[in-house]
Parts: sequence; C-alpha cells; structure tokens
Amino acid sequence: MKKTSKILLSEKEMPRQWYNIMADMPNKPMPPLHPATREPIGPEALAAVFPMELIKQEVSTERYIDIPDEVIDLYKMYRPAPLFRAINMEKAIGTKSRIYYKYEGGNYSGSHKANTAIAQAYYNKQEGIKRITTETGAGQWGSALSWACHHFGIELLVFMVKVSYHQKPGRKLLMNSYNARVVPSPSTMTESGRRILEKDPDSPGSLGIAISEAMEIAVQDPYTKYSLGSVLNHVILHQTIIGQEALLQMEKADDYPDVVIGCFGGGSNFSGIAFPFLREKLANGKNIRLVAVEPASCPKLTKGKFMYDFGDSAGMTPLLPMYTLGHNFIPEKIHAGGLRYHGAGVLVSQLLKDGFIEAKAKMQRECFEGGVLFARTEGILPAPESTYAIAGALDEARKADIEGVSKTILFNLSGHGHFDISAYEKYFEGNLPDHEMTATEVDAAIANSEI
Amino acid sequence: MKKTSKILLSEKEMPRQWYNIMADMPNKPMPPLHPATREPIGPEALAAVFPMELIKQEVSTERYIDIPDEVIDLYKMYRPAPLFRAINMEKAIGTKSRIYYKYEGGNYSGSHKANTAIAQAYYNKQEGIKRITTETGAGQWGSALSWACHHFGIELLVFMVKVSYHQKPGRKLLMNSYNARVVPSPSTMTESGRRILEKDPDSPGSLGIAISEAMEIAVQDPYTKYSLGSVLNHVILHQTIIGQEALLQMEKADDYPDVVIGCFGGGSNFSGIAFPFLREKLANGKNIRLVAVEPASCPKLTKGKFMYDFGDSAGMTPLLPMYTLGHNFIPEKIHAGGLRYHGAGVLVSQLLKDGFIEAKAKMQRECFEGGVLFARTEGILPAPESTYAIAGALDEARKADIEGVSKTILFNLSGHGHFDISAYEKYFEGNLPDHEMTATEVDAAIANSEI
Repeated sequence: MKKTSKILLSEKEMPRQWYNIMADMPNKPMPPLHPATREPIGPEALAAVFPMELIKQEVSTERYIDIPDEVIDLYKMYRPAPLFRAINMEKAIGTKSRIYYKYEGGNYSGSHKANTAIAQAYYNKQEGIKRITTETGAGQWGSALSWACHHFGIELLVFMVKVSYHQKPGRKLLMNSYNARVVPSPSTMTESGRRILEKDPDSPGSLGIAISEAMEIAVQDPYTKYSLGSVLNHVILHQTIIGQEALLQMEKADDYPDVVIGCFGGGSNFSGIAFPFLREKLANGKNIRLVAVEPASCPKLTKGKFMYDFGDSAGMTPLLPMYTLGHNFIPEKIHAGGLRYHGAGVLVSQLLKDGFIEAKAKMQRECFEGGVLFARTEGILPAPESTYAIAGALDEARKADIEGVSKTILFNLSGHGHFDISAYEKYFEGNLPDHEMTATEVDAAIANSEI
Repeated sequence: MKKTSKILLSEKEMPRQWYNIMADMPNKPMPPLHPATREPIGPEALAAVFPMELIKQEVSTERYIDIPDEVIDLYKMYRPAPLFRAINMEKAIGTKSRIYYKYEGGNYSGSHKANTAIAQAYYNKQEGIKRITTETGAGQWGSALSWACHHFGIELLVFMVKVSYHQKPGRKLLMNSYNARVVPSPSTMTESGRRILEKDPDSPGSLGIAISEAMEIAVQDPYTKYSLGSVLNHVILHQTIIGQEALLQMEKADDYPDVVIGCFGGGSNFSGIAFPFLREKLANGKNIRLVAVEPASCPKLTKGKFMYDFGDSAGMTPLLPMYTLGHNFIPEKIHAGGLRYHGAGVLVSQLLKDGFIEAKAKMQRECFEGGVLFARTEGILPAPESTYAIAGALDEARKADIEGVSKTILFNLSGHGHFDISAYEKYFEGNLPDHEMTATEVDAAIANSEI
C-alpha cells in the first residue's frame, strides 16, 4: 500500500466511457408498463419527456457508452475527482482496516449530481431543446442542473418542494446564482399544483407533486423536456464515472476494496461507485461486497416490497419494477433530503433481489455522529446524505476489528454539507430525532399506494 | 499557450519553501515600536503572545524558509491548488485577453486561510502550547484555525465579532463542527470585553475589540498563545505557497502574467499570490504589475495615511508603520467581512509606498456583479472578498480590449461563498448598498485615532 492519503488521476487517465451494468446482469429487469394499459412500453413512449439519446441510453444493453468530448471537457473542470485514504479517521477510531473515500463534492454543485446534469444538458442541447423542467428536494440536483443548463444556453425551471424552498434558502439562492428560475411546489403554474392547493392551500409539497408539475409543463411544448436526477438507468449510467475512476485509483494505491459503500436515495451515487466494482464481481469473479445504506425512516431496500410502482405520487410516470414503500409514502423530514424517496431504481432493485448487493438501514443521529467525526479528522463537512455512507464504513471497520481482521473499505462521499449547516446545529443541540419505520408502518404505507 | 482550462501540479512539484520578500525589498520596513515607550522593540517583546519559531519568521531576512514535513503532509490534503484559465468568462465578455485564476477555496476552511492556520498550529504544538485564542470577523480565519488546532490537539477559543456571530451562523457552526469554542465578542470573559459592555450592553463588537479579548486571555497563561490570520509578516510568508505554485503553473501553461491581482483586507491573500511574482520583478527585472483591490468603503491603500498605528482598537499591539484609516475606524458593514480592517500589513505598506505595487478601490455592487458572472461561467460561487479580485481582473481585460491589446491576467480566487449566500440574496433583491469613503471622512477617521 502507498503511504499517501490522496490518490489522484491525471486528466489523461480519466475514463472516456460510462459503464452500463445492464450488459452484465444475469437477470435483466422486467419492462416498464404503461400507467393506464399496464402493457409493456417501448422507448418511444418516453419521447415527449426525454431527448432521444437519453432514451437510447435508458434501454441500452451495450457494456460501454462513449462520453461525448464536450462532456469530457466539462468533466475536466473538476474531474478526475480525488480518492482519499481516511488516515486521520482510521487513527481516531483505532482500526486495523484501511478506509478510502471517493470525494464527489468538489465541483460547482457540491455533489455527484453534476456528473449527470452536464450530460443531460448536453444531450438536450444537441437535440435543440430550449427549456428544461425539473424538481428538486434538498436542492443538490437543482443546483447541478442550473449551472449545466446555463452553460448550454438552456432555460431551467425548477419546482422545489415548498418546505425545502423555505427551509433551505441557501440552495435556492445557489440555483438563482446559476440563473435558474425556482418555484415553490405546489404552485399555481400547473393543473397538478392548483389541484393540490385547492384541497390544501398550506400544502408543504412533496417530491412526487413536484415531479408531476415539472412533467406537466414539459409535455406541453416540443422544445421543453423534463430531467430527473436519480433512479433512471441513464442517470445511473452517467454516475459510473465515479466507480470507473475509483477502480484506477485503488489500483494506484496498490489496494483493493473488500467492500464498497454508498448512501441510498434513488440509487445514483451508490450505483455510480458500486457498479464498476460489481462488474468485476459479475464478469471477473472478484470477491467483493457492495453495500447500500438507507435511512431507517425510509427503508425501501431493507423493508420495502419488490413490485411495480409509480415514480411519482400522481401516477404520471410508467410503472417500474422496484423495491418501494408505495408512491404515496411521505417519509419523515430527516435532513438527508436526497434519501427521502419512496422507491429504488430498477437496476439496483433487480440486483438486490438477485443477491448481488446488500442493503442496511441506519438512524439519523448515529450518521451525524459519524459525520462530525469525519469533519474533525478528514476536514470535509459531509452532506447529511453522505453521513450514511460514513456510518456504514465505520460499521464495517468496527466489525472487522471485533473479528480481528483488517479490511479495505471504500465509500462514496457524495457531497459537502455547506448548505446543510443548520442540520448540524440541530445535532449539536441534541434536537435531531431518530425514527425507525416498523414493519406495520411499511405494510400500511404500501397498502395506501395501490396501483 | 496550452488549450486546457485547468493547470495542475503533482504533489512532487509542490514547492517545499515559503518565500520571504524581506530579502529582496530595496527599503526594509521601519521597526515596530513599543505601544507605551514608542521605542523600537525586538522579537523578545512578542514572546508572551507568539511561539518563538513564528517570531523568528516575523523578523527573518532569509529569502526562503523550509516548510516543515508535517505541514507539507497537511498541505497535501488540498495542495497543490489548481490554477484555471477562465475560458468561459473570457468568452462571456468577449475579451482578447487571457484570464487565469488560482483557486484557494478547495480546502476544509473554504479559503486561503488554511495555509497559515496549519503552519501556526504546527509551530504552537512544537513548543508545547495547549491552547490558542484568536478573533474572527466573517469566520474564514476562525474555521481555518479550528480544524488545524483540533488536528494538533490544541484547544481553540475564538472571539467572533458579535454582529457576525448572529448574522453568519453558518461559519460559527462550521467552527463548532471542527470542535472550537466560539464566543461572541464583546464578552464577559475578559476585562476588555466587560469594559465595553458596561458602556454599551448592545455593542455589536469589532475586530479590534475581539483582538483585545483574545490577546488578554493569551498573555495570562504560558501554555496559551494568540494567533492572527493576516497582516503580520509570518502570516504572509505562509501564504506565499500560493504564488510559488502559481509561478510553476503559469510556466506549465506556457504563459506569463502581465498583471497579478488580489483582493485586499490585511494583505495575506494578495501578498500570497503577488510576492513570488514581485520577486521576479525585484530580483530578475521581470516587467509585471501587482494590483491590490480594496473596498471603496475601506480604502486604506488608496486614501489612507502611511504612519505608525496600532493593529487593534484598544492599542495593545506594537505600533506598526502602515497605510491606515486609524485604529478606531469602524468600516461600513459590507459583506466582504475579511476586507473590513483599518490597516495594511507592514510589508505591503512599504512596497506600495516605494511604488512596487498598485492599489485600487471598488464598489460592492460592481464586485457582486462580477461575482455572479464568474459563478455562471466558471462554476464557483466566490466569497464576497474574492469578488473584488474578479472585478479587478475584469477591469484589466476591458481596459486591454479598449487599447486593442491582449494581456495575460492572473488573480487569486481566495475562497468560496457557500456561507455568504445571503449576501447574494441581497444583491439579487437590489438591496446591496454602495459606499465610497470621501477624503474628508478619511481625514476625520484618522484624526479620531491619534496614537
């Protein structure tokens, strides 16, 4: 093992292709179904919503897909992203294991979301799109897409969940700084928004409602498309640049992970780091564990049901085969806003079902405890989402120490927490609630979301 | 010129020495004077406040000073720092000039302050110091020193100007996350604080008061020292790593700056980038301009008086020969908190007096306009302080275009603005006041600060 704590790649070493795990999956995912007819749908059904190139990627079974030169050039603003060995944190907990992390917060958006925002804005621009609509919760995805759209001269309209819009003014202002228009959702701009507001003028909004609003605007105009920041296959494809780089960096460190860990919301940052390593397991027989860490208050992977469900509350999206808590489920208001989503992406769901990846659930307070330890030792204040990956890594190190073995642990530090500092304030004040969803609550949530 | 927009150095290429401009100054600065006797003082007079190694650096005339291995190792967490060519911003303004920037915000503190915080904490630790006190305004310095002290097992007590403590909770919480104790100043912990509070229980505090409080605590205990984040020679020495790297990076870019620009508060980030280039001018006859950009509301360099003055309001520091607006001057509450200081460091003051560097003053709104342009094109939301350097660079590019020439412009982007987003909100709302200090106001301020 090298002694250095930072493992860099040169720009020349940056991978030029995304990796598509569909090519190596023993069982391919079941097809999406039409929301009304319940019949399998083809790619053409998505043409009103996404540009063709992204639809092609959504259904592609090619193992590798070339990253366009213009996207590579923009990736070079902040990529290759560094991989660090957490030497100071290892010392602090006195572990015999080696803990590495890939840091994806060192870019204009502060999270891994930039990797797909740049690609999506690029493909939309190529197809002459003038305007994009999207939704955002905590705002990481919204900020990522804001700069990318501005760069390509595309207007961006962001529906931001109303409760976040008021609680997280920093992220909203960052989107404004990048020239996006941000509207609190539910809004009066759309039929879906107005319908909600008629029933409940004080509705705090939800990701599901915001998705419906954004899609409603997009389908009305051929030069407007909709963009999603997680869950879908093409989004996950773009994030594999993370794991593709990490593979090379682990090689440079002369080490190899026994376990790769990511926090889990819709699946994009976990899949981004894990899938290239999973390829080594599926295609080359490498012995490696992949662990997704989700909130105990939103446990779709560990307690949810594998079934066809909608991606949004209003039922406008195709039905997808996924682990879900039901599309009507409203998760507790934990600070990891990016992990508050009812379902898991199709690829991760199938791979979990087939036993190729693992999942575990963690409580919020323990994750923040890990986050503060990490900040004090490694000098990066993690996003609340990323603290779940940290807590997962600490679990693995402690388990190995109890077993008297030394493991190599790699996790994805998906973003920084500069705009989430009030969550840390609550933690320090002892005002951070813990909530674990019970099996009964899960059953009730799923029963409440019949399709 | 290379086509790439990012110019990196490998860890091996990172300079191993700081540069001390004292060695190359044609006129050395006049000596500091004892605050009471007005006689020149020697280094021993500072022994109650600073560790010996820093005092030696404060008065050293050696051209180069080795960076200790342990400091190098910590620098490697985030150094070498990247140098970018601002290709997108160049395009946006249609200039024929090439604009480069060195980015110092990509570390745990979010600004260049980490470069000296790590060094100062290290030297204090070497001399057995258990506790450090300091002051902070906007909080960049306080956050930088917090992590560094925690890393070396030193307790840190930060006196934070009360108005900032309440207005900028993000920075205060970042310091807490890094395990520092933060006290709003004036406080009841010190004689100086209590004296102020007796007169005015609602005092908003000032940097001068906070310095007095921090120094008062430090001198009471031999294991407690005081630490300052700008102005002094040893602080500026540590920051020269910025310019030392930038010199190598400009060489890699196959280009050379006609002008080097930094924003100006006490002088540490400007000097950090400018002094290594100034060495090339003083020692090797290179034709290059060095421009410090200060706020029009705190114009010590462009309108202040060169004279002996105190570093703090209470008159506890030695008297230093500097450009100043008077130590009792309270600047307007502009958002660039780091530039709200009445005086300029001794080295910069002498060099400005001797005509080796230039200074200019800018208004707040124009700087934010430049900051937003920069964020939208280059993808980094700049600290309010750094927007002054951006505005200075834009001035140079526009001037060159009017003259029909192409210049190479380099500026220091000293930090990011993630914790200053409310300042951008005010800018977007049109609520950012402009203030230019008149010659009469300057005269009055200086008259109000007789020594």
